[in-house]
Amino acid sequence: VIGLLGSTGIHHAGLAVADLDESLAAWTGLAGGVLEVRAELPEQGVEAAAIALPDGGEIELICPLDPNAAGGVAKFLRTKGPGLHHIALSVPDVSVALTSARAEGVRLIDEVPRLGLHGVPVAFLHPVAGGGVLIELIEHQTEST
Amino acid sequence: VIGLLGSTGIHHAGLAVADLDESLAAWTGLAGGVLEVRAELPEQGVEAAAIALPDGGEIELICPLDPNAAGGVAKFLRTKGPGLHHIALSVPDVSVALTSARAEGVRLIDEVPRLGLHGVPVAFLHPVAGGGVLIELIEHQTEST
Repeated sequence: VIGLLGSTGIHHAGLAVADLDESLAAWTGLAGGVLEVRAELPEQGVEAAAIALPDGGEIELICPLDPNAAGGVAKFLRTKGPGLHHIALSVPDVSVALTSARAEGVRLIDEVPRLGLHGVPVAFLHPVAGGGVLIELIEHQTEST
Repeated sequence: VIGLLGSTGIHHAGLAVADLDESLAAWTGLAGGVLEVRAELPEQGVEAAAIALPDGGEIELICPLDPNAAGGVAKFLRTKGPGLHHIALSVPDVSVALTSARAEGVRLIDEVPRLGLHGVPVAFLHPVAGGGVLIELIEHQTEST
C-alpha cells in the first residue's frame, strides 16, 4: 500500500551527535556497517556521516559545525541533548512527493528539494506533519519502484 | 562489517504517540505500508502497532495504556511529547547479542530477552549505550544471516 508520499521504506535514522569522530567509532563498533559517505554540508551548518548496515537501513550521524549556532542541530543538541533527530523515508521522486504533500496541506520545511549528504534530492517535512517526528524524504530507487 | 551486536539492519523506528488509532491512520495515509501487527503489551504498559513499508523497515507506534503511569512511554510523552522514541536493530540472536554487549560493559535495560510485539525475542540497551539513543534489539533472520 502506497501512501501520500509514495515512500517505499526507511532509508535511515538521523542522530544528532556532539562529536562526529567519536560517534562514528562507537556506532560502527556497536552496530557494524560501512561508512558510506562523510561530508560537510555548510548550508545546513553540519558535518554528517552515513553508516550503511549490511541488510539495509543506514545510521546518519549529524554534528553541528558550530555548537553555538542559533538553530538547527546545534539548538537541538543544546535543548534535547544527543539522540534521535529524524527518520528518512525513501521516495522514488522527492518533487512529486512534495507536490502531493502540499496539495493535501501537509506542512513542509523545504518547499523544493535540495541535495543531501548522499548527493541526491532530499526535503524535510515540518515535524507537525509527522505528529512530532521530523521526516526527511530522500530520493532512492528501490526494487519496487 | 559486523559490529559487537551482530546487527544486520534497521528493523523499525519506534514512535511514542498519544492516540494509537489517530496515529495509525495518519502514518498509513502519509507513508503507506501495511498494518503488520497490533497488540497490547501489558507488562510494558503500552498498546503498540507496526506498519511494514513495502521495501523494508517498519514504523512502530507505541501508546501508553495509562497516560498517567509513572514511567515508560507515558513519562516520555509527558516530558518530551510525541516523537521518535527508539530505533530497533535486527540481530540474528538477541541472547548472543546481549552476552557480547555485557562482556564489553555495554549498559543494558533488559538483562535477558523478552517477547516483543512481533512475538520474537527483543531487548533494550540503556540509552547511554547509544549515546542518548534508545536501541532495541529484535531477533530477525535476514538474507545475510
